Amino acid sequence: VTDAALRVACCQIAPEVGDPRGNSVLTRDAIREAVAAGARLVVLPELATSGYVFESAEEARAAAEPAHGPTLRAWAEEASRGDAVVVGGFCELGDEGALHNSAAVVDGSGVLAVYRKLHLWDREQLVFEPGREPAPVVETRAGRIGVGVCYDLNFPEVARGLALAGAELVALPANFPGSPRPGGERPIEITVAMATAHLNHVFVAVCDRCGPERGVEWVGGSVVCDEWGWLLAGPPEGFGPGLVVADCDLTQARDKAWNERNDVFGDRRPELYRLGESAAVDA
Amino acid sequence: VTDAALRVACCQIAPEVGDPRGNSVLTRDAIREAVAAGARLVVLPELATSGYVFESAEEARAAAEPAHGPTLRAWAEEASRGDAVVVGGFCELGDEGALHNSAAVVDGSGVLAVYRKLHLWDREQLVFEPGREPAPVVETRAGRIGVGVCYDLNFPEVARGLALAGAELVALPANFPGSPRPGGERPIEITVAMATAHLNHVFVAVCDRCGPERGVEWVGGSVVCDEWGWLLAGPPEGFGPGLVVADCDLTQARDKAWNERNDVFGDRRPELYRLGESAAVDA
Repeated sequence: VTDAALRVACCQIAPEVGDPRGNSVLTRDAIREAVAAGARLVVLPELATSGYVFESAEEARAAAEPAHGPTLRAWAEEASRGDAVVVGGFCELGDEGALHNSAAVVDGSGVLAVYRKLHLWDREQLVFEPGREPAPVVETRAGRIGVGVCYDLNFPEVARGLALAGAELVALPANFPGSPRPGGERPIEITVAMATAHLNHVFVAVCDRCGPERGVEWVGGSVVCDEWGWLLAGPPEGFGPGLVVADCDLTQARDKAWNERNDVFGDRRPELYRLGESAAVDA
Repeated sequence: VTDAALRVACCQIAPEVGDPRGNSVLTRDAIREAVAAGARLVVLPELATSGYVFESAEEARAAAEPAHGPTLRAWAEEASRGDAVVVGGFCELGDEGALHNSAAVVDGSGVLAVYRKLHLWDREQLVFEPGREPAPVVETRAGRIGVGVCYDLNFPEVARGLALAGAELVALPANFPGSPRPGGERPIEITVAMATAHLNHVFVAVCDRCGPERGVEWVGGSVVCDEWGWLLAGPPEGFGPGLVVADCDLTQARDKAWNERNDVFGDRRPELYRLGESAAVDA
């Protein structure tokens, strides 16, 4: 740990669907605990204010708040106690009345940015409007923080774009639904997070949730990866609740040289990638 | 294993720099062994004909062959014995006299495609001309095979482009130089291969080399991943020489639906990815 190290904490908690007031307290307490532990960057799960497995769009609407609502104000208050920055998922009521699966970046001064998830998973599509703006990189007092939400991680284009836009750390609020895996294997989402960090030479802080909810078992796969892709911390024991804490020198993510001749970005050949095409076999 | 299964074999061998004749025999024997084991797709390492750690460009030139040279003819002969397809790395002497770090796709009829590596690692830049054409997807009797070479794997754009172009399996001849890793961790290249398979819902067959060469320790990380990202086979015990064999139903890679509402490609938002920009921080 150098002087430049930033303490990052992912708060793996278990929000309860149908109890937005309880979740507001839960998230506030989690930030307080993380700040007390010295964290300067605190990441909360996706939809931490509302829970996830809605019975209806109305249930989501009843749990939604605007970005200038009381819960995010409370996050800002907690952040101000430790000069911290919070990246957390919330159920956003937009100005036009639409709901969004969003992540806010908040510090003691208030809300710095709101990102609306671009890639909606499964029944989220019945509730939320997808975002219309790229995933952002936000200059904060805790560094240049890129933001994505959960299934966004499945699109390597997102993290690549964040890294190219200057992100030193990608913060990813998530609710990973459980899926089968071979014995002895990590959840695949952790493998993907590690690869994402390595390929872009950025830190990655995934904050997942835990606790079953209406029949869904969550992965509980919160981790912090360094810029080489190695796990600095997480997941919590038994994939249960816990604070995942790691000290990260984000300046290490700025130098994209692998060696004297190779560079993560400089070696790209974008004119020869075929990212707009589909099913054009060459032979 | 269904009727549709294709046996894939990665031949983790130890070519010797300075002995192109010996490597020609070594690769031929490796293909023969794989075909005898029932493989219909055989992957060889990068620069399998020449070795890797050249003392000079002249040494590489002395080991180079054109794609229509005797070694690839021998590969075709061996492939013809088992109706197999070979994807292997070779030190290519181009028509204009330049050297290329290339991979050939060969079947019993001869050379189907030659791919020249797009991203040259370190001192390769002193010896080889980089490719000027995208990584190809080749329709073969063993399925739609995408091809990359080693460091290409660090550019998620390459595998994404191959999958979008219809690849069911990405074959990756490699020479991964060793690097430190935390205890209990896999080589990071294997983690990246798994993530690449998962994110694109394609099979990935990495054929690495083994054996030290002029002070370089190779990873020996040959693996076959299924379309979910799980390891079907490899790496060989002790990361030493061996045949990594897995039966793959490549048709499983064609259906890109995660569920009834989500699709690996259909959910992409390419207009909102920022892959051409650099260092434009939003706040």
